[in-house]
Amino acid sequence: MLTSLNNTRIKRVAELSKKADARKADDVFIVEGIKMFQEAPTERIRECYVTEAFFDKCGCREKLEKCGYELVSEAVFHKISDTRTPQGILCVVRQYHYQLETLLQKEAPLLVILEGLQDPGNLGTIVRTGEGAGIDGVIMSKNTVDIYNPKTIRATMGSIYRVPFLYAEDLPQVILKLRDKQIRTFAAHLQGKEYYDVQEMKEGCAFLIGNEGNGLSKEIAGLAEKYIKIPMLGQVESLNAAVAAAILMYEAAAKRRA
Amino acid sequence: MLTSLNNTRIKRVAELSKKADARKADDVFIVEGIKMFQEAPTERIRECYVTEAFFDKCGCREKLEKCGYELVSEAVFHKISDTRTPQGILCVVRQYHYQLETLLQKEAPLLVILEGLQDPGNLGTIVRTGEGAGIDGVIMSKNTVDIYNPKTIRATMGSIYRVPFLYAEDLPQVILKLRDKQIRTFAAHLQGKEYYDVQEMKEGCAFLIGNEGNGLSKEIAGLAEKYIKIPMLGQVESLNAAVAAAILMYEAAAKRRA
Repeated sequence: MLTSLNNTRIKRVAELSKKADARKADDVFIVEGIKMFQEAPTERIRECYVTEAFFDKCGCREKLEKCGYELVSEAVFHKISDTRTPQGILCVVRQYHYQLETLLQKEAPLLVILEGLQDPGNLGTIVRTGEGAGIDGVIMSKNTVDIYNPKTIRATMGSIYRVPFLYAEDLPQVILKLRDKQIRTFAAHLQGKEYYDVQEMKEGCAFLIGNEGNGLSKEIAGLAEKYIKIPMLGQVESLNAAVAAAILMYEAAAKRRA
Repeated sequence: MLTSLNNTRIKRVAELSKKADARKADDVFIVEGIKMFQEAPTERIRECYVTEAFFDKCGCREKLEKCGYELVSEAVFHKISDTRTPQGILCVVRQYHYQLETLLQKEAPLLVILEGLQDPGNLGTIVRTGEGAGIDGVIMSKNTVDIYNPKTIRATMGSIYRVPFLYAEDLPQVILKLRDKQIRTFAAHLQGKEYYDVQEMKEGCAFLIGNEGNGLSKEIAGLAEKYIKIPMLGQVESLNAAVAAAILMYEAAAKRRA
């Protein structure tokens, strides 16, 4: 059992929870909890740390044996864990590297494009809701929060393993490429005149969602085929980014079912 | 200018940010930031604390004069503030006490009923989205998180001042009362067989949303007229509570526009 807080690997794992740079350098991310372990593809798990208490009562020894694991003391686990009430299992998982072609391989792809989202919880919730609505992928501007942030990972509730995503080096170019491929690009925008719920969405389509405080930049919004509006009553000026994305993705899902 | 961290009033205000009990005893809640100040009904503001730096460049002196304010040092402000990068204005605002009749006064009320929600951000987001969708009120079980939690207040983005809400002493009784009044009660439920988007929603209706981890209790779900389902693709087992509420509220809003 690993008990030393000064163990080099333990110190590195603690860093991986905290720093996007470290995650990028090692090409991994951290997941915690039994659900995130069970849903993780075995071949992606690089390391696995469990407490004795967890190991004794977990129902997942077979998978643990398969991917290899290390018992650690409660103190060590506390050092590497990002949660207040840790469950006692944490894995180092290899990052994903999707290509744009993967997100576009289906007939009429449904995509979400995020520009500069800053709240890790919002991003994770969009990935989770997106899987539920059946999206084919999430495309993010480079200044969007790190999708491997532990708070984002937690909010995805496992959808991180299943929804393709990528950070676009050149977002305007990607949007132009989507338009070339006849994918409709809708900017959720306060200046939209047409309501979201009267749009045709059975063809390929992509929803552009902007930063929590400032919305979409002029440059990105300007590249969209159409501005659409989610009507707001009362004195509401905008919706939470994850809520706006959810309303649009589920509208598309409903139209595609009908 | 107030500079003493040991000032009795300052100590009490710091407590009001942290403790639901203290807020209840004083019948107030705390709001922070210029937007929350500007949207607050003047007659509800009991106290107002501002830093010199804020006062010097704020464009709201008229309202400040009207409701009365106290200059405090940066250190004092830091002590009473709940935010990491405070804007320099914080108010003590009187709590609301809505009656059920107020929530039911319109022709075909649109309501949200929350049972045991625990995440303050989710609750605030539901209030904000609810105002946008045009709901008439939020009814909460007693074990729902405190709506006056600073995180909830922040997430409402000002909708706390405009959306009626109440904690039901006896939630089952309230649901039966709604049914008596021909308000349709829909439980968002994994066992729902009918999809949410094929329901009639122009009549009065209420959506029952359960706790983040466990959903609705059997007792409360059993009182609903109908279980409805938000379809989920992939391996998604449930949606975030604020997302589920948003999808249902905006579906009702769309049906009522049509």
